[in-house]
Amino acid sequence: MERLEYQEGRTEISHLGRVALIERLTADSGCQGDDCAVIGEGEQKTLVTTQTLVEGVDFDMMYTPLKHLGYKAVAVALSNIAAMNGTPRQVLVSVAVSNRYSVEALDEFYAGIHLCCQRYDTKLVGGDFGSTRAGMVVTVTALGDVAADHVVWRRGAHHNDLLCVSGDLGSAYAGLLVLEREKVTYQADPNFQPDLAGFDYVLERFLKPEPRVDIVRELARRGVVPTAMTDVSEGLADSLLHLTRASGCGCEVYEDRIPIDYQTSRVCSEMSKNMLPVSCALNGGKDYELLFAVAQSDYERIKEMEGVHIIGYVTEEGMPAVMVTPQNTTIELKAQGFARQ
Amino acid sequence: MERLEYQEGRTEISHLGRVALIERLTADSGCQGDDCAVIGEGEQKTLVTTQTLVEGVDFDMMYTPLKHLGYKAVAVALSNIAAMNGTPRQVLVSVAVSNRYSVEALDEFYAGIHLCCQRYDTKLVGGDFGSTRAGMVVTVTALGDVAADHVVWRRGAHHNDLLCVSGDLGSAYAGLLVLEREKVTYQADPNFQPDLAGFDYVLERFLKPEPRVDIVRELARRGVVPTAMTDVSEGLADSLLHLTRASGCGCEVYEDRIPIDYQTSRVCSEMSKNMLPVSCALNGGKDYELLFAVAQSDYERIKEMEGVHIIGYVTEEGMPAVMVTPQNTTIELKAQGFARQ
Repeated sequence: MERLEYQEGRTEISHLGRVALIERLTADSGCQGDDCAVIGEGEQKTLVTTQTLVEGVDFDMMYTPLKHLGYKAVAVALSNIAAMNGTPRQVLVSVAVSNRYSVEALDEFYAGIHLCCQRYDTKLVGGDFGSTRAGMVVTVTALGDVAADHVVWRRGAHHNDLLCVSGDLGSAYAGLLVLEREKVTYQADPNFQPDLAGFDYVLERFLKPEPRVDIVRELARRGVVPTAMTDVSEGLADSLLHLTRASGCGCEVYEDRIPIDYQTSRVCSEMSKNMLPVSCALNGGKDYELLFAVAQSDYERIKEMEGVHIIGYVTEEGMPAVMVTPQNTTIELKAQGFARQ
Repeated sequence: MERLEYQEGRTEISHLGRVALIERLTADSGCQGDDCAVIGEGEQKTLVTTQTLVEGVDFDMMYTPLKHLGYKAVAVALSNIAAMNGTPRQVLVSVAVSNRYSVEALDEFYAGIHLCCQRYDTKLVGGDFGSTRAGMVVTVTALGDVAADHVVWRRGAHHNDLLCVSGDLGSAYAGLLVLEREKVTYQADPNFQPDLAGFDYVLERFLKPEPRVDIVRELARRGVVPTAMTDVSEGLADSLLHLTRASGCGCEVYEDRIPIDYQTSRVCSEMSKNMLPVSCALNGGKDYELLFAVAQSDYERIKEMEGVHIIGYVTEEGMPAVMVTPQNTTIELKAQGFARQ
């Protein structure tokens, strides 16, 4: 019998980093390292993705209604299907909870799951149910499909392709900041009534994100197959680095092209004069929007697409991933650490 | 903001029970309630299953080597594929750990995952990696395939079908008993050296179970499609009740036909004179053997199949699930509670 702490030659996970760790652990496995695994031999591919959310790390029960949590757990998994240009079809939900959770609490959680499934025409086909000693752990596995010649990886971007994002960025993180602020105040004074008025958009962005299945559908309708795509789950900087590294190229994006909602800017100015909205967009994460590259020849097809913004373009192999400010300063984008949120 | 404990009209999960809970939560979802979800429209069906293992509930780090844990997590998921007569093809592994775990510890864990994948010709195609505040949580999603007319559910058994089990039962639980005994002694005296000699078989059965993919293959080779099947993950009684209830029938099994290894009997006699080996088989669980029903007309095809034992037969609708002792006493089999282990 041995205890984990006594191991010799110990390397901390934080030292290696999450992405490097996944690469290390799955190096020999034929694992794709993309948003989904792509399986099947025929014309129609099956996409599969799995994602675990842990209470106290990925969500805080203090301000996460269980119905929203169920919705979000499914939405996050479906976002991975959308990120490979797929249509979601089925989900499986594996839940483990402590005895602190009642059946009624789980009913609420599943109501959120059913709602998201219904909205995205996806069936809940299975799952597992177990116990923990403390807290809740949710794993959603999502399956989807896509024609073999329409699968979009992170690795297909080419020099001069246009870089686009859907929706706006940084708003989910702004919502989280509001909730964290109210939580701290509430903890100091339990009689305190949280005032969330005027923040409805950013709160909804954090608590109930929507996978951009609509963007995938609209791209198909317009006959556009992106050259590369990923979802923006850990911030725009992280997604840009993933996409450009996988594609073996660099990128240049323009700060004033990055779509940011006015509520996000308002939260930033209320929080601190040093907090920039663009930092929320680059590093905040949890927006679950899509970042994709399209060939210049598709410009006419996407330029007026609702909710899509061209933020820059793909540069040559060997070039870094950079952002250009309105003052024409070039800032190199950096990878984020291990923390998810 | 609200706290979960304050909810009115609270129903405890333990009050409802795990199986009833899964049925309640997935009632409107088209969820199959079988070992896997069956998806796809064509001749070839895809099987999908997902299972979460939580440290301190489903495994104890005190006596579970990480390599074994990785192997077992995959094996348990593949067992669900086998239980529907399928061939496993891919797995996705989602892991969340605290900072107590080093990269080297995760290397060990993944070595076990790779080993089990290799042994069962299954590819690790994806997954997720995250953090917990304490402990380890592992979710394995497995995919497999099976011809549409060879899918075997729990619900297909008919009156007079023969009931068969693979391998032997109760040995995994016997292994757990040995490990628990040594753990208690070690906790009382950390200088104590565990003596596990002579228990190698039952220990391996608990720490490194094998999914019975070989039985599925051999049944196919002999041209036998069971009428109903499930794996024995929570004890034989639980599996018999699931299979007969789903099929709308009863069953009669014979105590002296239930295969039990001599090491299982030895552990029982060492532990307590009141502990019967057949109780381990009925209620112990974690054996991951297969329980299946076959038509009487298949008797000749399976009677000499290695590692398969005919333990009884299926009775009519309205009859209970019973075990007949060597003294000809009939004992009705009861459902287990919520606890997994």
